[in-house]
Amino acid sequence: MSETKNPGISRRLLLTGAGAGGAGLAVGALAAAAFGGQLPQKPAADTVDFYGEHQAGITTEAQDRMHIVGFDVTTKDRGRLIELLRDWTAAIEQMAAGRPVGGGGSYDAPPEDTGEAEGLSPAHLTVTVGFGRSLFLDEHGKPRFGLEGKLPEALIELPHFSGDMVEEARSGGDIVVQACANDPQVAVHAIRNLSRLGFGTVRVRFSQIGFGRTAKTTSAQQTPRNLFGFKDGTANILAEDADALAEHVWVGAGSDQPWMEGGTYLVARRIRMQIETWDRSSLREQENVVGRIKSTGAPLSGGEEFSEPDFAMAGSAGPLVPVDSHVAVLHPSAHGGARMLRRGFNYTDGSDGLGRLDAGLFFIAFVVDARTHFVPLQQAMSANDAMNEYLRHTSSGLYAIPPGIQPGQYLGQQLFEG
Amino acid sequence: MSETKNPGISRRLLLTGAGAGGAGLAVGALAAAAFGGQLPQKPAADTVDFYGEHQAGITTEAQDRMHIVGFDVTTKDRGRLIELLRDWTAAIEQMAAGRPVGGGGSYDAPPEDTGEAEGLSPAHLTVTVGFGRSLFLDEHGKPRFGLEGKLPEALIELPHFSGDMVEEARSGGDIVVQACANDPQVAVHAIRNLSRLGFGTVRVRFSQIGFGRTAKTTSAQQTPRNLFGFKDGTANILAEDADALAEHVWVGAGSDQPWMEGGTYLVARRIRMQIETWDRSSLREQENVVGRIKSTGAPLSGGEEFSEPDFAMAGSAGPLVPVDSHVAVLHPSAHGGARMLRRGFNYTDGSDGLGRLDAGLFFIAFVVDARTHFVPLQQAMSANDAMNEYLRHTSSGLYAIPPGIQPGQYLGQQLFEG
Repeated sequence: MSETKNPGISRRLLLTGAGAGGAGLAVGALAAAAFGGQLPQKPAADTVDFYGEHQAGITTEAQDRMHIVGFDVTTKDRGRLIELLRDWTAAIEQMAAGRPVGGGGSYDAPPEDTGEAEGLSPAHLTVTVGFGRSLFLDEHGKPRFGLEGKLPEALIELPHFSGDMVEEARSGGDIVVQACANDPQVAVHAIRNLSRLGFGTVRVRFSQIGFGRTAKTTSAQQTPRNLFGFKDGTANILAEDADALAEHVWVGAGSDQPWMEGGTYLVARRIRMQIETWDRSSLREQENVVGRIKSTGAPLSGGEEFSEPDFAMAGSAGPLVPVDSHVAVLHPSAHGGARMLRRGFNYTDGSDGLGRLDAGLFFIAFVVDARTHFVPLQQAMSANDAMNEYLRHTSSGLYAIPPGIQPGQYLGQQLFEG
Repeated sequence: MSETKNPGISRRLLLTGAGAGGAGLAVGALAAAAFGGQLPQKPAADTVDFYGEHQAGITTEAQDRMHIVGFDVTTKDRGRLIELLRDWTAAIEQMAAGRPVGGGGSYDAPPEDTGEAEGLSPAHLTVTVGFGRSLFLDEHGKPRFGLEGKLPEALIELPHFSGDMVEEARSGGDIVVQACANDPQVAVHAIRNLSRLGFGTVRVRFSQIGFGRTAKTTSAQQTPRNLFGFKDGTANILAEDADALAEHVWVGAGSDQPWMEGGTYLVARRIRMQIETWDRSSLREQENVVGRIKSTGAPLSGGEEFSEPDFAMAGSAGPLVPVDSHVAVLHPSAHGGARMLRRGFNYTDGSDGLGRLDAGLFFIAFVVDARTHFVPLQQAMSANDAMNEYLRHTSSGLYAIPPGIQPGQYLGQQLFEG
């Protein structure tokens, strides 16, 4: 639409009073000032601190909605990549505080913020950024962005697990960005505005919406139910458990890459549930598969939800908690004490061509080292877990999550300047 | 898993106390009683009446989340189809009241309810059921289910509109079921349990999740913003406006099919927004496309959000509200006064292969007759609306929504027994 077609800003602003400063606006004031001028101020509550020792969105009490995106970096220019990380840092700081992205603009430029979160609460928005192995090494093993020597040993290529039906287009990626909020529009707004800032530098590789957290993440939070109808994440590491976090989640001072100190690793797996099959299995079968009572979440060996399962307790026909049940196969006692901080979400993505809903769990876990805290567990699960019959893993990703930052720093600065 | 592998219900129930009646349960009590026995009772609040003159989910204050599914009927047996509608009616009544589906079951049968909504509020769940033209006539024009003579004239095949890129697999369907709630898990639970009841009778044709309503639906509700960042649905028909509902939404006594009296028609269009293109257009362009101020929602001719646009008001270069703006092209004054009850949702469905987010509006409108209240408006929009440049219509559907029912009746009874 041409500029002459409409008399434009000055007339309209004068007519509607949508301006912060009358005549000044008529000769080219900042659109953002006008844009913000008539909107209600957002509440300062409902915010999660963006800055800190660790990134937000890891031990933050799990929100109800998630939008996670894997990006591939399309530039070869290290400076441009760093510039994007700076831009993202500034934008995330603004959005986490409930402010629009950007600082101004004119009527003849695109708005710096896309606008759909205007008037909404920040809804506990957190944005968590991490780096895939492919950011460090290309598919031929050649270093990228001068990051040779910075690849953590723990940032392995995840192996193929028995039964995996992984789709490459949903997996991996150079950069992962996880946005969580209690309002889906706020999470989507965050990802969209970061994607927009990344235009010409990164390209969306995959994008996934999730809802209804699938783990208890603080002592105050109730344990939610997953799409199998069972309580999930009963034995999760809680935000208050500093010892468990130090042991199982945060990378300590002794790692091979000092820039990862205070960071962690994010494991992502899109796990489609064969819910039509599950829904036709008996309650007895379902409880034996999970190893827990469906109504209460208590282990089949008795007690209540938070009772430790007793794998030795036997009935007339064998252990009350079957040896191939999910809880038995993945219990820390079978894996040298290894525990994960789980923080996944349910998903429902339309239907497949066979008249079935495409639904399941977008599994997210934060671990200190996937080699000890994820791979052996997933191997055990794919080999022995009775639940496998009802699952199909359709994506796989592992990302190094750098530590948090302080004001003035940018996300990933420890990697690029450490 | 065999029955002998685990000593099963009696042992476990006795061990955990998860039963309502001790020894009675040990010899085969209802699993549902045990399942429900230890769970907190759901609040009676947060419910929407299922029974009434009209179906719920039309004038109900729009909830924040939606799961809509199109089903194809795979049986040729009219009795079986009616049986399904009876089963659905019973299940919807239970779920709308916050109760699990079904009345019982045994440990050796699949649970009648899939369980993932246990412990959640009913979250204002509404489920709205409608019938597509293909339920009445097959692709060769032959009657199905003895419904010859029952096809309303208004249940037309929607025409192809200029620029449509409609995917058949996302469109049409014999039956549509719209579940709305303020908790996505509650909406998903409803659709999943209805799909499950329909196994062998219907097959999922398409399934769509939406969030963040895109219209103001009651006088108390704020106008939300769509993914273009603009307030949407400012001039919508409100639930309190009985005269407008009678004129533009509810089918009256004089229609050609008496069974539709008190019913309406649902138009569904999945409208992908080219958000990357939109996000690169200037604020001036965006406002000229919409015809409204982005910050306030006021028409470009002045006033505030709810001011009527003045299409005659001209500036030095033409009308302040451009003639090809969305508000000008679709205004009732251009369409014989026709208005719609809009009740759509935003969607974000991952990304396409080109690194762009697949996001937009799942448009839903309820109208008394699509021939007067939708087709001419869509034709005008596809021919003249400046917004088209940023939209791609990827699905299309029209469904007859029968009136509401009273206890003892089943959804669609007016059609099959009227």
